[in-house]
Amino acid sequence: MSVAKPVIACLIVIGNEVLSGRTQDANLQYLAKALNVVGIRLMEARVIPDVEETIVATLNECRARFDYVFTTGGIGPTHDDITAACVAKAFGVRLVRHPEAEARLLRHYKPEDVNPQRLRMADTPEGAELVDNPVSSAPGFRIGNVIVLAGVPRIMQAMFEGYRHKLTGGAPMLSRTVVSLVPEGKMAAKAAAAQAAHPATEIGSYPFVRDGKLGVSLVVRGTDAVQLAAATEAIKDAIRSEGGEPVEEG
Amino acid sequence: MSVAKPVIACLIVIGNEVLSGRTQDANLQYLAKALNVVGIRLMEARVIPDVEETIVATLNECRARFDYVFTTGGIGPTHDDITAACVAKAFGVRLVRHPEAEARLLRHYKPEDVNPQRLRMADTPEGAELVDNPVSSAPGFRIGNVIVLAGVPRIMQAMFEGYRHKLTGGAPMLSRTVVSLVPEGKMAAKAAAAQAAHPATEIGSYPFVRDGKLGVSLVVRGTDAVQLAAATEAIKDAIRSEGGEPVEEG
Repeated sequence: MSVAKPVIACLIVIGNEVLSGRTQDANLQYLAKALNVVGIRLMEARVIPDVEETIVATLNECRARFDYVFTTGGIGPTHDDITAACVAKAFGVRLVRHPEAEARLLRHYKPEDVNPQRLRMADTPEGAELVDNPVSSAPGFRIGNVIVLAGVPRIMQAMFEGYRHKLTGGAPMLSRTVVSLVPEGKMAAKAAAAQAAHPATEIGSYPFVRDGKLGVSLVVRGTDAVQLAAATEAIKDAIRSEGGEPVEEG
Repeated sequence: MSVAKPVIACLIVIGNEVLSGRTQDANLQYLAKALNVVGIRLMEARVIPDVEETIVATLNECRARFDYVFTTGGIGPTHDDITAACVAKAFGVRLVRHPEAEARLLRHYKPEDVNPQRLRMADTPEGAELVDNPVSSAPGFRIGNVIVLAGVPRIMQAMFEGYRHKLTGGAPMLSRTVVSLVPEGKMAAKAAAAQAAHPATEIGSYPFVRDGKLGVSLVVRGTDAVQLAAATEAIKDAIRSEGGEPVEEG
């Protein structure tokens, strides 16, 4: 059996509005799930402000550490939209008007609505490949292993769905969830033993309160279905041995 | 007029469940708003997995860069709860049983429900100060500029509310929001001019669709109410000059 190196990604959420609490980010959760489907594992996310120095430094750190880096936010027409310029700076290339992106914007807007600020959305780092935006035309782009997406969730999702076939993933992470009303503190020793006995899987323990009752979701993750099944059975046995009733959730 | 250095913070969200998309983080938005009330500005957030090496490295990088570092997650009784041990390692101190934390746990649980895994929640880095947990007893803690909170939002919030009076903030960031139906791309040049004319404020531009109509929220932020008012008037004038009707939202 070959053990492939996992393909890992980082998400950089660019935007003061998330850090001020004005906006609840919805892109992390969407991308986490969507990337997993194509066998890419989100290993880190960062939320950073609209500050050039921070964006450039974060991009350069993350693109060296991860197979893919996704960014969301900061690609609109206003003065606080500085992502494209920062990506160019991080890669040490010029920011240039992309002819195809410009053509798309000119088709999208009525002639009287075209202005220099809107056309600025056609500026991309030299050598970048466009990422289509079927919602509002202004494209994202990819350069190296960095993929730049919109911040508005509906647009980001449409961009990602149109681009995902170009991503190269590994084995998708599979997961199984076992729920019981045995409190996690009572289960902890046996969950740890199950984890130790099944090191190819990751067992997470997440307490919850449902209908006034305290319970725990034990989530077993791994790329090998057989090993996953063995770890899941170990967890179910552990729950039963504490007098609980394991219920597997879909 | 004295210009105080802003007090800045970073949030580290520790947990595979957020990175897998299983759980939607709710702590960033809460802390962003709650910190602002006490004059602390959230400048960065990171979401990282339950991996010791990553947690230790992230803690050491962030505690050197920010006035305060908050962490959420990983302080429960199970094998995947490794935050306290990682904080001890980052600070180069021992992880020790905290007598007061242990006493609280022993009061909270029935004697037959006490076990070594639950008591592990009383282990804190040597020299740490407890952060009370009025919900489920197991405390968070503070060491240096790092404040360790629970991941469950209800517990995290209760911990923070009980601890906030011990935080030292600067001037709270004030904000005013002006909404109009002038599209942001049409407003962009004038918003940029308003930003340039009012450098002590930050003007953010956030498009939205409401009742099928495209509009934009222009958010003006700053610590000085007079400068904020001047920038807000400039934005309103800009909207009017584009034929729009500025509406200030509360």
